[in-house]
Amino acid sequence: MKVGGKDYRTIWDEADGRVAIIDQTLLPHEFRIVHLATLADAEEAIRVMRVRGAPLIGATAAYGVWLALTADSSDAALAEATRTLGASRPTAVNLRWALERMQRVVSDVPLEQRAARALDVARRICDEDVALCSAIGDHGLELLRDAAARAPGRPVNVLTHCNAGWLATVDWGTALAPIYKAHDAGIDVHVWVDETRPRNQGAHLTAFELGGHGVAHTLIVDNAGGHLMQRGLVDLCIVGTDRTTANGDVANKIGTYLKALAAHDNRVPFYVAAPSPSIDWRLGDGLAGIPIEQRNAGEVSEIAGADASGRPGRVRICPPATAARNDAFDVTPARLVSGLITERGLCAASRESLGERFPDLAVTAAAV
Amino acid sequence: MKVGGKDYRTIWDEADGRVAIIDQTLLPHEFRIVHLATLADAEEAIRVMRVRGAPLIGATAAYGVWLALTADSSDAALAEATRTLGASRPTAVNLRWALERMQRVVSDVPLEQRAARALDVARRICDEDVALCSAIGDHGLELLRDAAARAPGRPVNVLTHCNAGWLATVDWGTALAPIYKAHDAGIDVHVWVDETRPRNQGAHLTAFELGGHGVAHTLIVDNAGGHLMQRGLVDLCIVGTDRTTANGDVANKIGTYLKALAAHDNRVPFYVAAPSPSIDWRLGDGLAGIPIEQRNAGEVSEIAGADASGRPGRVRICPPATAARNDAFDVTPARLVSGLITERGLCAASRESLGERFPDLAVTAAAV
Repeated sequence: MKVGGKDYRTIWDEADGRVAIIDQTLLPHEFRIVHLATLADAEEAIRVMRVRGAPLIGATAAYGVWLALTADSSDAALAEATRTLGASRPTAVNLRWALERMQRVVSDVPLEQRAARALDVARRICDEDVALCSAIGDHGLELLRDAAARAPGRPVNVLTHCNAGWLATVDWGTALAPIYKAHDAGIDVHVWVDETRPRNQGAHLTAFELGGHGVAHTLIVDNAGGHLMQRGLVDLCIVGTDRTTANGDVANKIGTYLKALAAHDNRVPFYVAAPSPSIDWRLGDGLAGIPIEQRNAGEVSEIAGADASGRPGRVRICPPATAARNDAFDVTPARLVSGLITERGLCAASRESLGERFPDLAVTAAAV
Repeated sequence: MKVGGKDYRTIWDEADGRVAIIDQTLLPHEFRIVHLATLADAEEAIRVMRVRGAPLIGATAAYGVWLALTADSSDAALAEATRTLGASRPTAVNLRWALERMQRVVSDVPLEQRAARALDVARRICDEDVALCSAIGDHGLELLRDAAARAPGRPVNVLTHCNAGWLATVDWGTALAPIYKAHDAGIDVHVWVDETRPRNQGAHLTAFELGGHGVAHTLIVDNAGGHLMQRGLVDLCIVGTDRTTANGDVANKIGTYLKALAAHDNRVPFYVAAPSPSIDWRLGDGLAGIPIEQRNAGEVSEIAGADASGRPGRVRICPPATAARNDAFDVTPARLVSGLITERGLCAASRESLGERFPDLAVTAAAV
């Protein structure tokens, strides 16, 4: 998507053998491209969230394997890269998906061809992600078109949580792809942007993205969504997912569950944009099975932003001695999800419906 | 309650004819007593939230009438004071309650006695508030005692939203009064403190209060409560109320509704500490009838705290051009409220139950 009128993806490889990313910890206050040259760089970028969002984490991990193999293409190095990258973030299943794929395609290849093969597949994962997201956008566009038909003379109001936009993927985004496609198709769409504490990806990234593309949007606190739904100010919700289980439970940014409850209570459709690499076919019960990342308490007690002069700053919001807890994700039970927007179209958040859409993947998983 | 080992109320009159308050916009980073000398001072203190919390707003308004009458005790001045103070914040019904009471007791009194009478009643409102809150604490204590009996060997975990502690009242607090009483009674209690964006009264005030009194607590983002309830980490919720309707709907800080939904979904009891002055006997349907304050969008896009050197600072969390919306309250329907903790004991959030507890007040209102 465009930044300052120029088209970008969130990750690409440079001619000099390094991987370029947008350092998302600096957004929206600064747009800076940084380069990853080693496995350690890639692991650090994922861990400290210079890149984040389940699809982009997967793509970065794939490139990380490539960077590792350019230094050492041995089985031991491949195993070490897989282990290191796999431990960088626990919740997004795309990470495991990308690493297993890289291991599979590289293992059978002679040592001297491994790096080239890894680069080839990392690029392919990126291109596939763009195609998946574009397809999700096309399918989701139909939902927005329907909502627009029911809301003549006013914008369609979509609420989203966190950032599942192009910055969370390689391009297009998942939850925001339908919004970009709708905007481009001339549908009058307005987005309620949850700020998404503690890290404020909504305020930092989603507002930045939507503003860059010219989509109307309004920033709200995470507390506000239920109230807006009670007042009829939300036509539908669309969020992303870090891991969707085979029965349709959805792990996504902390607070997603609360919005799903409010949507259910107010009969507002609640959709999850779920590309198939974010589906964990091996898990059924999301509450029992999905590991929830615990992050630094400082992300709760301190907030990052720009100071009066526009420079990066932080403020502490509580007394110095206050303890804090920082669970990064929650699990929204399938019963609260109106539908999954996949690259193959809309399906119910159920084992049956997912199995029908993805017989190839679901069958494979059943054998695991 | 104690600050630095010394007992304070949140508001009192000084010998020099001024009203002392704690400037809550500076907490927790600075504890400063400021003085109100005029009606305009009192109105400003309520409007910019140097004092906040429905009971304390009521007490400040009462003192504001006194300050106005010391300058001019005419009917016109009384009417002007009532109008000015009444427009300072829209949602808390205690404001109207206090102003109507002041007008009633002052109107029939000769001009030269009005100020003295107003001071007398303002003091009485404060003393009564302390007694109401203490009684709410005693009744709520029983709920915590029961919860402790069901949780042997571990703390009782209470989730609260915003600040309904002693800083929101004259002393003791509403939602926090049972927690202070339980702590003082030796019950092992731990509080999950919602930070409560946009103004972070949880992080700024509730954490400050609980820390000052030595009650165990952990700061969480507003997004986290549902997840904690799903995991069995919340035994009960207790929140305050800015206005409770005669049928038990509760207007409270934005986001309260989301926590009530989560509590309901996880069978966690959800209590509202509701002193009778916060009950609006004239209203039935809270969603239709309670005015919801719209505050400055800057409270959403900028966050106040302390910078690295401990000085007050602000950071902007979104791109400069981003629009924001700031609804200060939401309405939790009575069906989601497990019970109201009033100064006369626990009662159901229903017209019948409230009428039984408060036949004197409910009957009067029916005639309005």
